[in-house]
Amino acid sequence: MSDEGKFKKLWGGRFSADLAQEALEFSESTAADSRIIAEDIWGSQAHAIMLAECGIISEDDLGEILRCLQEARSEYEAGRLELRRDLEDVHMNVEVYLREGAGPEIGGRLHTARSRNDQVVTDTRMHLRVRLLDIRAAVADLQETLLQRAAQHTETVMPGYTHTQHAQPISAGFWLSGHASALQRDQQRIAAAYQRTNLCPLGAAALAGTSFAIDREITTRLLGFDGIVEHALDAVGSRDFVAEALSALAILATNISRLAEELVLFSTYEYGMIEIPDAFASGSSIMPQKKNACIAELTRARTGTIFGRLMQVLTSLKALPSGYNRDLQEDKPPLWHALDTIDSILRVFTPMVQGMVLNAERMRELASANFAAATELANFLVRERGLPFRTCHQIVGELVGTLIKEGKTLDDYERVQELLSAQGQQLTIDEIAQVVDPTACLQRQVSLGSTNPEQVAGMIQGLGSSVAQTREELAAVRNQLQQARAHTDQIIQHVLAGSPLSECEM
Amino acid sequence: MSDEGKFKKLWGGRFSADLAQEALEFSESTAADSRIIAEDIWGSQAHAIMLAECGIISEDDLGEILRCLQEARSEYEAGRLELRRDLEDVHMNVEVYLREGAGPEIGGRLHTARSRNDQVVTDTRMHLRVRLLDIRAAVADLQETLLQRAAQHTETVMPGYTHTQHAQPISAGFWLSGHASALQRDQQRIAAAYQRTNLCPLGAAALAGTSFAIDREITTRLLGFDGIVEHALDAVGSRDFVAEALSALAILATNISRLAEELVLFSTYEYGMIEIPDAFASGSSIMPQKKNACIAELTRARTGTIFGRLMQVLTSLKALPSGYNRDLQEDKPPLWHALDTIDSILRVFTPMVQGMVLNAERMRELASANFAAATELANFLVRERGLPFRTCHQIVGELVGTLIKEGKTLDDYERVQELLSAQGQQLTIDEIAQVVDPTACLQRQVSLGSTNPEQVAGMIQGLGSSVAQTREELAAVRNQLQQARAHTDQIIQHVLAGSPLSECEM
Amino acid sequence: MSDEGKFKKLWGGRFSADLAQEALEFSESTAADSRIIAEDIWGSQAHAIMLAECGIISEDDLGEILRCLQEARSEYEAGRLELRRDLEDVHMNVEVYLREGAGPEIGGRLHTARSRNDQVVTDTRMHLRVRLLDIRAAVADLQETLLQRAAQHTETVMPGYTHTQHAQPISAGFWLSGHASALQRDQQRIAAAYQRTNLCPLGAAALAGTSFAIDREITTRLLGFDGIVEHALDAVGSRDFVAEALSALAILATNISRLAEELVLFSTYEYGMIEIPDAFASGSSIMPQKKNACIAELTRARTGTIFGRLMQVLTSLKALPSGYNRDLQEDKPPLWHALDTIDSILRVFTPMVQGMVLNAERMRELASANFAAATELANFLVRERGLPFRTCHQIVGELVGTLIKEGKTLDDYERVQELLSAQGQQLTIDEIAQVVDPTACLQRQVSLGSTNPEQVAGMIQGLGSSVAQTREELAAVRNQLQQARAHTDQIIQHVLAGSPLSECEM
Amino acid sequence: MSDEGKFKKLWGGRFSADLAQEALEFSESTAADSRIIAEDIWGSQAHAIMLAECGIISEDDLGEILRCLQEARSEYEAGRLELRRDLEDVHMNVEVYLREGAGPEIGGRLHTARSRNDQVVTDTRMHLRVRLLDIRAAVADLQETLLQRAAQHTETVMPGYTHTQHAQPISAGFWLSGHASALQRDQQRIAAAYQRTNLCPLGAAALAGTSFAIDREITTRLLGFDGIVEHALDAVGSRDFVAEALSALAILATNISRLAEELVLFSTYEYGMIEIPDAFASGSSIMPQKKNACIAELTRARTGTIFGRLMQVLTSLKALPSGYNRDLQEDKPPLWHALDTIDSILRVFTPMVQGMVLNAERMRELASANFAAATELANFLVRERGLPFRTCHQIVGELVGTLIKEGKTLDDYERVQELLSAQGQQLTIDEIAQVVDPTACLQRQVSLGSTNPEQVAGMIQGLGSSVAQTREELAAVRNQLQQARAHTDQIIQHVLAGSPLSECEM
Repeated sequence: MSDEGKFKKLWGGRFSADLAQEALEFSESTAADSRIIAEDIWGSQAHAIMLAECGIISEDDLGEILRCLQEARSEYEAGRLELRRDLEDVHMNVEVYLREGAGPEIGGRLHTARSRNDQVVTDTRMHLRVRLLDIRAAVADLQETLLQRAAQHTETVMPGYTHTQHAQPISAGFWLSGHASALQRDQQRIAAAYQRTNLCPLGAAALAGTSFAIDREITTRLLGFDGIVEHALDAVGSRDFVAEALSALAILATNISRLAEELVLFSTYEYGMIEIPDAFASGSSIMPQKKNACIAELTRARTGTIFGRLMQVLTSLKALPSGYNRDLQEDKPPLWHALDTIDSILRVFTPMVQGMVLNAERMRELASANFAAATELANFLVRERGLPFRTCHQIVGELVGTLIKEGKTLDDYERVQELLSAQGQQLTIDEIAQVVDPTACLQRQVSLGSTNPEQVAGMIQGLGSSVAQTREELAAVRNQLQQARAHTDQIIQHVLAGSPLSECEM
Repeated sequence: MSDEGKFKKLWGGRFSADLAQEALEFSESTAADSRIIAEDIWGSQAHAIMLAECGIISEDDLGEILRCLQEARSEYEAGRLELRRDLEDVHMNVEVYLREGAGPEIGGRLHTARSRNDQVVTDTRMHLRVRLLDIRAAVADLQETLLQRAAQHTETVMPGYTHTQHAQPISAGFWLSGHASALQRDQQRIAAAYQRTNLCPLGAAALAGTSFAIDREITTRLLGFDGIVEHALDAVGSRDFVAEALSALAILATNISRLAEELVLFSTYEYGMIEIPDAFASGSSIMPQKKNACIAELTRARTGTIFGRLMQVLTSLKALPSGYNRDLQEDKPPLWHALDTIDSILRVFTPMVQGMVLNAERMRELASANFAAATELANFLVRERGLPFRTCHQIVGELVGTLIKEGKTLDDYERVQELLSAQGQQLTIDEIAQVVDPTACLQRQVSLGSTNPEQVAGMIQGLGSSVAQTREELAAVRNQLQQARAHTDQIIQHVLAGSPLSECEM
Repeated sequence: MSDEGKFKKLWGGRFSADLAQEALEFSESTAADSRIIAEDIWGSQAHAIMLAECGIISEDDLGEILRCLQEARSEYEAGRLELRRDLEDVHMNVEVYLREGAGPEIGGRLHTARSRNDQVVTDTRMHLRVRLLDIRAAVADLQETLLQRAAQHTETVMPGYTHTQHAQPISAGFWLSGHASALQRDQQRIAAAYQRTNLCPLGAAALAGTSFAIDREITTRLLGFDGIVEHALDAVGSRDFVAEALSALAILATNISRLAEELVLFSTYEYGMIEIPDAFASGSSIMPQKKNACIAELTRARTGTIFGRLMQVLTSLKALPSGYNRDLQEDKPPLWHALDTIDSILRVFTPMVQGMVLNAERMRELASANFAAATELANFLVRERGLPFRTCHQIVGELVGTLIKEGKTLDDYERVQELLSAQGQQLTIDEIAQVVDPTACLQRQVSLGSTNPEQVAGMIQGLGSSVAQTREELAAVRNQLQQARAHTDQIIQHVLAGSPLSECEM
Repeated sequence: MSDEGKFKKLWGGRFSADLAQEALEFSESTAADSRIIAEDIWGSQAHAIMLAECGIISEDDLGEILRCLQEARSEYEAGRLELRRDLEDVHMNVEVYLREGAGPEIGGRLHTARSRNDQVVTDTRMHLRVRLLDIRAAVADLQETLLQRAAQHTETVMPGYTHTQHAQPISAGFWLSGHASALQRDQQRIAAAYQRTNLCPLGAAALAGTSFAIDREITTRLLGFDGIVEHALDAVGSRDFVAEALSALAILATNISRLAEELVLFSTYEYGMIEIPDAFASGSSIMPQKKNACIAELTRARTGTIFGRLMQVLTSLKALPSGYNRDLQEDKPPLWHALDTIDSILRVFTPMVQGMVLNAERMRELASANFAAATELANFLVRERGLPFRTCHQIVGELVGTLIKEGKTLDDYERVQELLSAQGQQLTIDEIAQVVDPTACLQRQVSLGSTNPEQVAGMIQGLGSSVAQTREELAAVRNQLQQARAHTDQIIQHVLAGSPLSECEM
């Protein structure tokens, strides 16, 4: 179109000078917006259908608009729609595409009763909701893998650590399932963020609603939203859903970083309890023997990336007057980046956990090397001798102190016997052997949620059920979104076939 | 007790040297722990009852333990229980109090089947849950005040801003209710954080559970928890509930900071739309005419305080091996500080909003001073002349550009008429007057959630219902917590009266 | 080369499986490394020359290595060298390029006595140093522009604000030069960061130095560094220079964001004191009258971007064992992003400040509209009547309180006279008129650094000198870096011409 | 004084209602201000002297003012001056103290030509400068201790780690001195922050300077500042010096946290390379054998505290209009907290490092357990066989791979010989033994800054000189500050003795 040859900004009526080139480059958002092209087109389709349904544009105009938007969609899906930077954002790109296809007379009608302010936050919510579902699915994958690995090791003894020091014997299954347990709360947090994401702001227009008699329920349904962000000013100006999603991702990253740290630690020569599969380790350009847990290290570091993005968004929202401010444009780059980061972490972490080798022998060796059974010895004295716990804690504490000085361990049964006897506690060698045996320790733990193999098996099953339920929820929600897209498509086909809109259910 | 005169650390058995004084000062946590004394005592009472119910300690010992703990509680409630710094933390203080009262023989039995690791996180959760309820109540107060003020102003015209520039006329009621709307999501987020807070980790012991046959359901019920954090390793080592609470508070603070910014702005001489009540403003030591919105400024600044505390906790959790690490002790100071900060903000913000004066005249004046009705004029052309929106946007844009150059506004009806005519649009003076009148603009907005007075009234009612529902939820939850405390107290009275535990329902 | 056809990782000797595809994608750093290709080549050239100079490789091998590296450099400069992602990073890409050109026999010798650990931090420092110089130059541009604009307005009266409330009359030149003054400290901070950046870690090898008798002074000189990071472990493992640079950028961004906020504010209808040039403002897709200070808004928001990057790097460094960890790879993306962001802000801010229109009339109007001269009236009473300042503060405070209630200002001379008289202070109308006149207020300020036009002119001159000195420093430092590059090039030409290295000065 | 009985706010002239109690509690700053009482008094003394010297107040009034301020100072130093919360801040407290002592007629004259805006930032700078010196001294202590410990261990072999994996043999002295080396940059950064801190903003008054003919040079000298913050608007509104100090502290904390992490790690059973002294370790309430590196853990966690404070201050400064805003009051709590935190870390870290035991035997054992000498073997082949490094890297990589599969190490000389021979490299057993011996490895490192004992000794000496120089600088700066205090005191004594001010040198 000739009058678009040298594009005149769609909003430029009152301006006497064009945006400076450096200002355009500074302010245009096509890089971040390239993620929400499909959403912008879908949103425009739903908006156009609603306008026609409400009698604000004619069905003829609707047909032409939908034809062009479908074409834009095809171009996009074929990878041929590239956003022009000089058109600033995705909305202007789609609208200009429409104007070039349908002419300004018809194309110029699409933007009736809406604004870029409600459009962009609609697109962002539509994109984010899918990413949150994807991440929940990837977390479920990691949980399942952890639980599978855990199920193989409910009786594999290893030292349980507090303060990175040997505390009590636990099983490797207990250790791994503990991470799956923490991730279940991440599932809940992301689900909660989804609830506040999948709400429709479209129809809020610039900030005040509109004087056209639109029907916001229609667009809400066509776009698969669960509800409406009713208050127009709140709808266009709020990004707390972005901050909430980033918070949930930051906490998820934190939880994963703790497993990452343990993978780095446990795969050292000193610990030697696990081996990272070669496919997830790297070597050195100078030291030929090196095998580094690089994936775990990078995961650890990229936790900081997510923190930074959260801090960025919180900072940019702080003390912003209500309604839309251009600052809000800056919600998407950090959100996309955090989503990509967490997604890539999960995609690489799951197969790494799947493939890592647990060195059960080394775990067993460490479990009895450094007094991890001391608590059990104290508990034994409480139970069998009726002494107060604190007294037993003192007795065993002194025993351990002496053994350390002598370079001995609890496996030196006879010396243990002697030393206990000196403190007035007579135990047989068999009793001692039984009490300090790490595997027997596991078995003796009886409390709910303890490292006892049956307890761990029960928790693995319980967490497995939670993951299965997550899968079902995700399938249901995805199906709902697909139904909405399909519903929109049916109306589009109907209209493009020249049939009257009144035959469509909205 | 003489052997406690010079206190020997309860955990000191294997140590040959005392903690250095500077190390004690560096690591003791009594300042932060002074917030959780009541919780620690309640937790100990419930734990002792459960131990006796499970036959792990005798009922006689239970009686003595409960007697001493009740005494500690009375001392605390009378303000006479001060935590000794040399005893490091609240747990050791309470236990030493017990040992001094009941003797080491009996007092030393309380710590059976538990650890400071599960104790401290139990206490923290018990304290946090109440603070979250308090904050929800305070948010509800602010919401109600905003809605009351909004209800008085559904027809008070003011400029709606985007980019801090005049956009379209809105009502002051629309503006204020928009903030109440955003706060409703904060209510949801804090409620979600509560769900993951009010779960019982007690019984996880150090990290692995215990070999004593405890019943975690009993302590969970007696302490008013909604459920159990089952996995022992996860229970003692996880603080994502702290990070989640801080995230929710950070986002809440952000939302309030946006209102704070507007109060600063709208109370300037230039805006002049509101006046901060004298009781919430401050003067200058040098400039006698000054009246500063200091409360709003400090609120704005203290948003950063909450961000900092969130960042602190996230950073301290990052890459921590699972299970308890001493780093976790550092969860409480930032949590308490953030809770106090947000609490004090809410307590001062609500009466300030209650007392602030809205200058309706100035609002009205600004609403028609700077072309806020331009969109409506474009919409009029779309509706009445059937032109595409983009065309009308261009026409009105050029009109506005010319008027600005001429120092005129849309209230210069005749010039407006001329200029529109020059662009081929004939409007009567009456039409123009009606279209650009800000009050008429409000009335014309018809869409759901718009600034139309009826829409705003509807939203005020809807949000009011949500707040009322929040109040009911809060009352129910508080009642549940009180019931749990009363239940524990009944058992204590029963036992202290010398009656058998078997008569108590657990 | 056939054996490189299917590339075998250069460090893969001990590995039995290739890196998984997702692990490669997760861990490769070519995107960030594409910024340091030139640096990596220069570093390799200097390293090779040094190895030959020290007799570790032969001069023949050196010639072949330099030939290939020069080719790589030409390819890069012609935009034809693209980093292969499967080669992980820039170092491997350059080395493989070399091996393919010079054969493995010769190419394999370059990596003698170095490691990717010292290489990457050398490259990063070389890149960062130039970016810091560029940013200092751009800050100098902004300072100069501010000072130029300030110089035009040393007598343009406007209200000075504290708490966003009118405080005392100042000049626009005083306001603008205040920002230039703050930026001077940013200059100093970036210069300080440069000092700790431009130091040479090359030769630290993996972490421990090397058993080859290298000469680190040679590479340090050839690469234009000001000194050596001597300690090898510290050299490869420290990134505090990155955190320091990011801190300096974060503070710089904060200072600019404060000007940005004022541009947003002062260009509102309500303030009306400045107008943003059309070329740096944007309109609305729905509201034809809008003119938004979008550049200032985005600048404000992107301050949070820099904060986020700083937090990211600090978090990733926290509690990292000394020496190189893969986490350190994550220093570059946030550093590059922060540098790009601040650079783009400066490039757009300077012409915007250059082009903005100051509305002197509106400034003057506001300056006398709201009691900004009240302090001067109090000071007058102190000076002329000998009263204590606090007494005068009270008198004028009560005067202002009454005038506000009456809707009057200090320009209502007669009422002012009456009210002062009622408090026992007799002033003539002339005295009052003179005291409260904003322009006279400016003139009366006499203290060093005050808003008095002469003082402001003096500060503009002083700051101008500082900027000029900055320019000179920058020119000198850039020259030094160019000399180093030229020196390296001379040696390369010499060697490529077949001449002996012994003829070169090192 | 009766009229102060019910205190009337000193700035309350125009106000009709008192500050609400909750607003007072929200906004008063006496807790934070209690740190700067001495500074506020000194500042007031210097200001009063200057006013008299400039003829703005009489010498009689000066005498009375100084008498009261000296009394306030004595009260403060005796611990009897407590800030009244209802007086809001330290400035009002001191001024009211003065008014109550000297009467409002004289006391009311002190605030001439100044404002709380310039006062508070003067006080903050005066306090911060001393804290920065204290922290530098404490860093010097830690450096010295590290260097002393390092000097004992220049030949103590331990594994050098990269990626927490064995890389090459280093000495414990090399490891420890590496931390001292990093801390030297922290010294520089804090010194740089000091430079921008110790500048005098007093005399800027509220924001615009003053119409009294004050002499800012006098107060600058009397208060020991190195220079003036000339621009009044910049002087009262800038807090970038606070952000810079916090950045320097955050980076310092990061560096210390890395040592802390290593202390946690190296004191585990698995590493067993160091033992934390009992006086700096803690036990467990349930596990009698535990010995936890609690000080190192808390240090690690409190790094996040500093990060949080930095983020808080940056956030609160972002987008603040220039000049004083109440938000700036919030600079002190985070600054004080960060200073206290870092100070307490340093005070406990130094004796812990002093007392920790290095287990040289275990270090030696680990150094040869896991192929740390592999690089040396490759380097040997390069040197002795003339092969390219990459080829040698491949050969040794394959050797290591085979040995690992066979459960052997480089100490299995004969197998090493066989495997190398199979790859065409003939080495004698002696050669192998020599090449892979960790102590020989240390000796062979020859490069500047390497782990070679002589190099390490040289670096210890060099760093020691730097620390000594730091001590000298600190002594000189402290002396300068004391001279300024003494100078002020001399003038005070002179005036109180009734002698004329003209006899004093200013």
